[in-house]
Amino acid sequence: MGLARPSQPHPEQALLGYGDAARVPELSPEVLALLRDGLGIRAPRPDPAARDIALPAPRLGEESLAGLREIVGAGHVRADREARLAHTRGRSTTDLLRLRAGEAVGAPDVVAYPAGHEEVAALLELCSRERIAVVPYGGGTSVVGGLEPDAGRFAGVLALDLRRLDALVALDGTARLATLEPGLRGPQAEALLGERGYTLGHFPQSFQYATLGGFAAARSSGQASAGYGRFDELVMGMRVATPAGTLRLGRAPRSAAGPDLRQLILGSEGTLGVITELTVTVRPAPAARAYEGWRFRSFADGVEALRALAQDGPRPTVLRLSDEAETALNLSRPGALATAGAGGALAIAGYEGSEAEVEERRTAAARVLERVGGEPDEAAGEHWVRERYEGPYLRDALLSAGALVETLETACFWSQLADVYARVGEAARESLSAQGTPPVVLCHVSHVYAAGASLYFTIGCAQAEDPVAQWRAVKQAAGRAIGDAGATITHHHGVGRDHREFYAGEVGELAIRALRAVKRELDPAGILNPGILL
Amino acid sequence: MGLARPSQPHPEQALLGYGDAARVPELSPEVLALLRDGLGIRAPRPDPAARDIALPAPRLGEESLAGLREIVGAGHVRADREARLAHTRGRSTTDLLRLRAGEAVGAPDVVAYPAGHEEVAALLELCSRERIAVVPYGGGTSVVGGLEPDAGRFAGVLALDLRRLDALVALDGTARLATLEPGLRGPQAEALLGERGYTLGHFPQSFQYATLGGFAAARSSGQASAGYGRFDELVMGMRVATPAGTLRLGRAPRSAAGPDLRQLILGSEGTLGVITELTVTVRPAPAARAYEGWRFRSFADGVEALRALAQDGPRPTVLRLSDEAETALNLSRPGALATAGAGGALAIAGYEGSEAEVEERRTAAARVLERVGGEPDEAAGEHWVRERYEGPYLRDALLSAGALVETLETACFWSQLADVYARVGEAARESLSAQGTPPVVLCHVSHVYAAGASLYFTIGCAQAEDPVAQWRAVKQAAGRAIGDAGATITHHHGVGRDHREFYAGEVGELAIRALRAVKRELDPAGILNPGILL
Repeated sequence: MGLARPSQPHPEQALLGYGDAARVPELSPEVLALLRDGLGIRAPRPDPAARDIALPAPRLGEESLAGLREIVGAGHVRADREARLAHTRGRSTTDLLRLRAGEAVGAPDVVAYPAGHEEVAALLELCSRERIAVVPYGGGTSVVGGLEPDAGRFAGVLALDLRRLDALVALDGTARLATLEPGLRGPQAEALLGERGYTLGHFPQSFQYATLGGFAAARSSGQASAGYGRFDELVMGMRVATPAGTLRLGRAPRSAAGPDLRQLILGSEGTLGVITELTVTVRPAPAARAYEGWRFRSFADGVEALRALAQDGPRPTVLRLSDEAETALNLSRPGALATAGAGGALAIAGYEGSEAEVEERRTAAARVLERVGGEPDEAAGEHWVRERYEGPYLRDALLSAGALVETLETACFWSQLADVYARVGEAARESLSAQGTPPVVLCHVSHVYAAGASLYFTIGCAQAEDPVAQWRAVKQAAGRAIGDAGATITHHHGVGRDHREFYAGEVGELAIRALRAVKRELDPAGILNPGILL
Repeated sequence: MGLARPSQPHPEQALLGYGDAARVPELSPEVLALLRDGLGIRAPRPDPAARDIALPAPRLGEESLAGLREIVGAGHVRADREARLAHTRGRSTTDLLRLRAGEAVGAPDVVAYPAGHEEVAALLELCSRERIAVVPYGGGTSVVGGLEPDAGRFAGVLALDLRRLDALVALDGTARLATLEPGLRGPQAEALLGERGYTLGHFPQSFQYATLGGFAAARSSGQASAGYGRFDELVMGMRVATPAGTLRLGRAPRSAAGPDLRQLILGSEGTLGVITELTVTVRPAPAARAYEGWRFRSFADGVEALRALAQDGPRPTVLRLSDEAETALNLSRPGALATAGAGGALAIAGYEGSEAEVEERRTAAARVLERVGGEPDEAAGEHWVRERYEGPYLRDALLSAGALVETLETACFWSQLADVYARVGEAARESLSAQGTPPVVLCHVSHVYAAGASLYFTIGCAQAEDPVAQWRAVKQAAGRAIGDAGATITHHHGVGRDHREFYAGEVGELAIRALRAVKRELDPAGILNPGILL
């Protein structure tokens, strides 16, 4: 079955932090001084121990577990404390803060590890019959509460861990298509494709842990989206197991045969079905890569430069721009946080392709960037590449130091960008200042399109007495500001449960009713990720 | 209300043909000889008169008409013979053949011309209440039966003609977005945008008559799709009137806020709602254009060249390739049909943009085309541009001459292209030969993507005794061949009623149930284009 399965084990993920505990940086004296003097942080919050976490009593009886074992085999069902804790919620700051406070509400009762489509389908059938809520589980990296269902009216919760669906099923060099299983994590998929000379080109910050199924279900967008496209743009076909049967979608790159149903499953966040196979476009692995920094007098100048490249080209593979505050804090280099302090606004432009193509695009783009006043800063590009996945580890360190740090993001059309930027920043500053913890608010443009771009905010302040409540308040304020400005509540994090009300406001009640109608048809018992998205 | 409304009237459309009767060409003696000697056509089929068409008796009473008049004004409701005939079905060959035989089944009982979203919404409410089927009507150019609903269980049929929704509502030069009303025909929209320095870049063969609403509802793809994108890719936002309320979709170019609901309305062919406003990306009107022909030794060689450009660039604005049969018949020049007879396979590559950009892309693409053995044929490019909208007029002339001519199209991934090409051609030849009318089957690649392409077939033969039954048989055979080969039943014509069964087979029963569930929610009385698509 399939061309290949990867051999490397999953990296260890720490329970109380983002992932590999060894990668959490030690904060420099300068950073600690900044936390103290800039944010008024008095004392660190020492790390609690995993053993202090109170796990809710399991609700599923032996009979249900036996049914699960019959489908996937006894060795592939786990109801022990370790497995349940490891599948508890995602990796948002509030997810971590709640675990650090010893609270594991939302922990699944049991974890099953199916081996393929048929086992997934059988599990959905059993769970529909026994009213067991199902959380499709990939990398566990949701930052919007996408793994914490409303399970009260169900008999229990099953985490459906897809890690055993990890094969490269087929590779079509002519059409440049790979058929891959959804449990593959980013590095596993790249390794399988890389051996054969290809790349997906999908590198979100969660790359190390997140899976292909999650990329699709949550409409992930990688840091190289300007060149390779968003994940939803890469998906040409999929097989989806639902409680009502199987969907096989995608017979051509594009079709006029009705609504594009792939686009109904993409972004459905596990509420309509479980993706068991994906056919995605791949590209030849690039022979050359070049990353460089560009400094602009202001964020506004930099935005003009990005818009010019997005609309008239040439389009770099990676294109992003920090505002003045983020540039000053040098957040593109977590290891060197707060030590650079250069002025203006720093953009990162990266190019991947053949030697000639990289050189050609880089030269042509440089002309555009210089026209808007950009000045090259080559070192900044390489620094960014080196530390592109380290942000979440820095958050772990900052949480322990007593800071509250979280990110939120949105997207809009270019003509609204300045307004959205101003309103969301203002809302965050107002909310946290009113709570007695004035923040720093940093922002960057993370993804560009001809018609618009995304804005990615990082917010840091001192932890209040109840940091979860503190964050919820600022999240509400920022979400309202995004909605009032006419922007979308999320560009690539997804809806989960954290954005559910904003999402309903954004698309309107009628759209929600239409989606619920689809859900009733595909998932009559409503077991799939209940309370997520809808 | 809006920046501008266009002033030019709609071009006259002949009832019994595609459009402007003055553009129907006179067939040359050479073509007539070809019809006689090549296809065995004995006698012409003289054009019938429109007055001989039997119009079904109207079913709606005076009370219903009064209700409609109350909403849109007495001057904007028509139940006369002329209006009803002008809104009868679309422009497929069988639509025309049936009219030519004096049969107008499917004619609406009444035509209403609303002025804006609110009037559309009010009409849908009234029709839901009174069980009147509604056919959203744009340019009337459907070639798949998209305007002939199953209306038996309804009180009557209203054609909802959107021509009065013809404003350019807003133009956003920063985001390069235009908000346009759906009743604008191709040339009207281009005129409004052109005055302001922009273009949509959407030029399907039906450009002269088809409307923006139709482009969206049926997922149109223009001849310049390689450069400007398909119409569904241009749509960033829309307002949709449904019997259950209004949808407003699209706050950003891309979003992770759930499924992309724009993609649910795109391709819904008027069955889920009526698009009353579209926000689409526009581009600066190109300063330069260059079209050229390229000749390849074989269709297979040409396909390799197109794939190379689609996957690795540079991407021309227009890129298409005729097979040997089509090249020999010179179908790219209807006026010179059958007179050129050059060998090999002819590709058309067109470039639009700034002078420098056109020159640069053209030079770089030429290197790729030459590498695969292409030889330039500059005149062929200009001929193609000049005659790009004339194909349907040639069909009118051929129908009168006693030939049966129709087109059908599909799309698939590159690795399947040769197989799909062979199977569909074979199925068409077999079906028509078995009916005693051996055909010529011509084909071209009309649209390219990184992962695949479309195939567009033109089939011609002598008309049999019952040409409608004759065409249905070959259409069935071709549709089965497309499905068996794993390709999609339509790349840009849509599903309508002609492809309904094939569509259900393609996406599967579960997907159809999901779409029906959406329809029940948005259109509880089921009045919108019943029997189309689903």
